[in-house]
Amino acid sequence: MAGFFDGAPATEASGLVGFSGNRIDRRSEHRSADSVAVALRDAAARLYLLRGDKVMLAAEGQPLFGSADATALGISAGKAVLLGWADEAPRLAAAVPDAATIDEAATPLIDLRTLASTGGVSPEHLGALAQARSLLFWHGRHGFCANCGARTEIANGGYRRDCAACGTQHFPRTDPVVIMLAIHGAGIDERVLLGRQLQFPPGMYSALAGFLEPGETIEAAVRRETLEESGIRIGRVRYHASQPWPFPAMLMIGCHAEALTTDIQRDATELEDCRWFSRAEAEAMLTGTHAEGFKAPSPIAIAHRLVRAWVER
Amino acid sequence: MAGFFDGAPATEASGLVGFSGNRIDRRSEHRSADSVAVALRDAAARLYLLRGDKVMLAAEGQPLFGSADATALGISAGKAVLLGWADEAPRLAAAVPDAATIDEAATPLIDLRTLASTGGVSPEHLGALAQARSLLFWHGRHGFCANCGARTEIANGGYRRDCAACGTQHFPRTDPVVIMLAIHGAGIDERVLLGRQLQFPPGMYSALAGFLEPGETIEAAVRRETLEESGIRIGRVRYHASQPWPFPAMLMIGCHAEALTTDIQRDATELEDCRWFSRAEAEAMLTGTHAEGFKAPSPIAIAHRLVRAWVER
Repeated sequence: MAGFFDGAPATEASGLVGFSGNRIDRRSEHRSADSVAVALRDAAARLYLLRGDKVMLAAEGQPLFGSADATALGISAGKAVLLGWADEAPRLAAAVPDAATIDEAATPLIDLRTLASTGGVSPEHLGALAQARSLLFWHGRHGFCANCGARTEIANGGYRRDCAACGTQHFPRTDPVVIMLAIHGAGIDERVLLGRQLQFPPGMYSALAGFLEPGETIEAAVRRETLEESGIRIGRVRYHASQPWPFPAMLMIGCHAEALTTDIQRDATELEDCRWFSRAEAEAMLTGTHAEGFKAPSPIAIAHRLVRAWVER
Repeated sequence: MAGFFDGAPATEASGLVGFSGNRIDRRSEHRSADSVAVALRDAAARLYLLRGDKVMLAAEGQPLFGSADATALGISAGKAVLLGWADEAPRLAAAVPDAATIDEAATPLIDLRTLASTGGVSPEHLGALAQARSLLFWHGRHGFCANCGARTEIANGGYRRDCAACGTQHFPRTDPVVIMLAIHGAGIDERVLLGRQLQFPPGMYSALAGFLEPGETIEAAVRRETLEESGIRIGRVRYHASQPWPFPAMLMIGCHAEALTTDIQRDATELEDCRWFSRAEAEAMLTGTHAEGFKAPSPIAIAHRLVRAWVER
């Protein structure tokens, strides 16, 4: 009898999207109250430093700093989070305090999306920066207990916040989002559904997407979101790939979806346009050669990979 | 050319798990400030009433009540959430106030897990109750703004809480959890990895599982959690099914995973035991006929479906 994974592709679709190159060894079972302090005493410890969505780069263009650099910016051990280890050296992250002045000539601040699309740093760094950005955003917005309103304190290496007043423990959140390419027909009549949000760059069309809600399966969320945004009914759903999307902390769950209908009833509050595209059109959109200037999202986006996987099939 | 979904199974694996039978039409794009009040004025409106994990049942064993029943228990419109519509009638949910006395002879309170495993109510109700339970738990624990500590108010039909003090909008959370069946070998040597948590019923073994963390793909979380809990290294990962798990608000993401190693290094803080099982053993565990009394989780659990899909392949 053949093995369960015989015939499964050796290349993982989730490995092709932006922010998926994280190689940090998280050792999540070994986090403790003094994880960050112990890690910072290791001379080999290095930190990612962020201000909101922006990443600080060192002189040589790399995003890592020593603990002395962090201290000089006013970052205390109690403000850092321990991402894990890389080559047995602790790897941390911290937000640069608002009060700190940054010499942007020496250490420029570059937007994380820009870093991802220009390839300015390695996929390993981008993955770790996604982890850092999501965690730091959560700490920045969760200084108080949602259960009782008291101040909370960072705990467990940055993977928890504790409320001393009511005893509630709070954990970082990750919001699952379904993103789906609806496919209708077969052969030369096969077409895919793409939509435009108002804030997209001119000509860009992408896969429909929306937050998965409490009490839904992935497949149910794909059907609901597609129906709500486009009026198209979905039959079978096939998982393709997932992606961490650190704006601020999403898990993108990418699927192909079987369209059972073709009559688009667009939700005008969500989408500026929504239409069917042929394989030839979609291919031209991926390569930037569409006659009308339409284009697909950049290769770092999971929507790009959903379209490409269908085009190249 | 064949269609993209030719050969895809007509039966959806996610449709076989407990709590996946939700048929509520959520109409998420049409929620507004007065959604709940308008819905409650509809004579056809019906509510699910919960106290923590327990569901109130009406005399005929069904979990639906009219708005007069809710009012009699001291539930105001401002405390209910609008799940959506069923057969064009509004379907809501509310927590029974602590102060309300319930006549359990007339309207018994039954634990949601018990209802799910005994099949006391329909799959449609169980799915809606999962949605209700996750939402109501979130409201119960999020009366204050995590950003500034002020009190928040329910908004948008129960799908948001707003802070008037700092303007932050808070949304219900759903926590992605990976649950995976590691498979090693092929043919008669093929075996799967199952573990026991201390709190499991005697003899029960299940698939390993853990929370997906910020900055991870599903596949990376499967590899990390398996390695951390069992020491087993994972190669390819194949998504199988997902499940809403309302204790309190998880999205279970079920995968099969290719084990590359066999030497178990168990994390004793997470697992009381962890071992390899043959197909014959796993089959006996599913049917409750294992010679040593080992058993798999119940059919409502996604872990049961991961094991069964492998056994029946």
